[in-house]
Amino acid sequence: MDFSSKLLENAVYEISQLPGIGKRTALRLALHLLKQPKDQTSALSNSLLKLREEIKFCSNCHNISDVVLCEICANPKRDESIVCVVEDIRDVMAIENTGQYRGLYHVLGGRISPMEGVGPQNLTIDSLVNKSKEGIIKELIFALSSTMEGDTTNFYIYKQIEGMGLKTSTIARGIAVGDELEYADEVTLGRSILNRVPFENSLKLG
Amino acid sequence: MDFSSKLLENAVYEISQLPGIGKRTALRLALHLLKQPKDQTSALSNSLLKLREEIKFCSNCHNISDVVLCEICANPKRDESIVCVVEDIRDVMAIENTGQYRGLYHVLGGRISPMEGVGPQNLTIDSLVNKSKEGIIKELIFALSSTMEGDTTNFYIYKQIEGMGLKTSTIARGIAVGDELEYADEVTLGRSILNRVPFENSLKLG
Repeated sequence: MDFSSKLLENAVYEISQLPGIGKRTALRLALHLLKQPKDQTSALSNSLLKLREEIKFCSNCHNISDVVLCEICANPKRDESIVCVVEDIRDVMAIENTGQYRGLYHVLGGRISPMEGVGPQNLTIDSLVNKSKEGIIKELIFALSSTMEGDTTNFYIYKQIEGMGLKTSTIARGIAVGDELEYADEVTLGRSILNRVPFENSLKLG
Repeated sequence: MDFSSKLLENAVYEISQLPGIGKRTALRLALHLLKQPKDQTSALSNSLLKLREEIKFCSNCHNISDVVLCEICANPKRDESIVCVVEDIRDVMAIENTGQYRGLYHVLGGRISPMEGVGPQNLTIDSLVNKSKEGIIKELIFALSSTMEGDTTNFYIYKQIEGMGLKTSTIARGIAVGDELEYADEVTLGRSILNRVPFENSLKLG
């Protein structure tokens, strides 16, 4: 693309560095900002700068937080003996939205993926293993995505904490509520039959 | 969405103000920036701020430019008697890419659209009419999109410059090069028959 303005070219280049945004979309976004009041652009820029400069991570669960100990870890009503291991803050938000979980979290910051150059040392696994040694945690719930990388990460952590006497579990895989059986994939359907639950349980959940 | 951090919430809100970007995508972009070096975020923020603060519009054609008179208008080799009327800088870039046009441009900044609250006074139509009065321009090429708004804008300008003795034309509508006839819409195909060109012309263009 040939730009008539260096300023525009720079802005388009920087926007197009974001994932999933190409040069054309970047140009459309830049032109949109030019049509809006200057306040909008400065608010956007400042919020990004502030986010990147001032963000903190909870010292206990490594979740994004504005303070040293996040709201969830600081809440005395939460059960600190159960820890749900997740990839990132989006998973915490998703589980919190269900309102069904009263334990704490541990945010890994990704999953082991040699293809993308992410090894165990890039994640917060050491911190999880150290926490587990303290004896407060009784159960770890693995809630990583069920991909090869997710399974590898689960297994790596499982090996690290083996022999500490912790209960480990993974979230149930099965047919989504409201889904039709005929469209489910075989692996999911197979697991949902093997891991069937007493009918009375589903009555209780409504 | 419940955020564990006000900083993150603000950034997601500001990003989601951009067109075509929802809250989920905004969160994904914000988390991406957090994983990248701080330089990337500051480069992005600064380029946006600089763009919005320092951008200029060419005093002649209203195209985006870093200087008072844009490169195209300042080029003595361009034919200033022909002016191509377009909606925005993307159209200028598209036509410049063809390498077929040696005249100047006039960037309207949009098209007349009462539905979106855009009237003739919001565009650079007055400036175009004033330029036309000076007698240097011999031909106006309307290259707006062929929608109701585009046609309305063409017609409005046409009425304003009526009687000034200017030649007016619109870019040819027809079947795109490489397209199959059977998939073309009726209006386009109809126009391409009515506005057929001598076969020798297509031989010259190769």
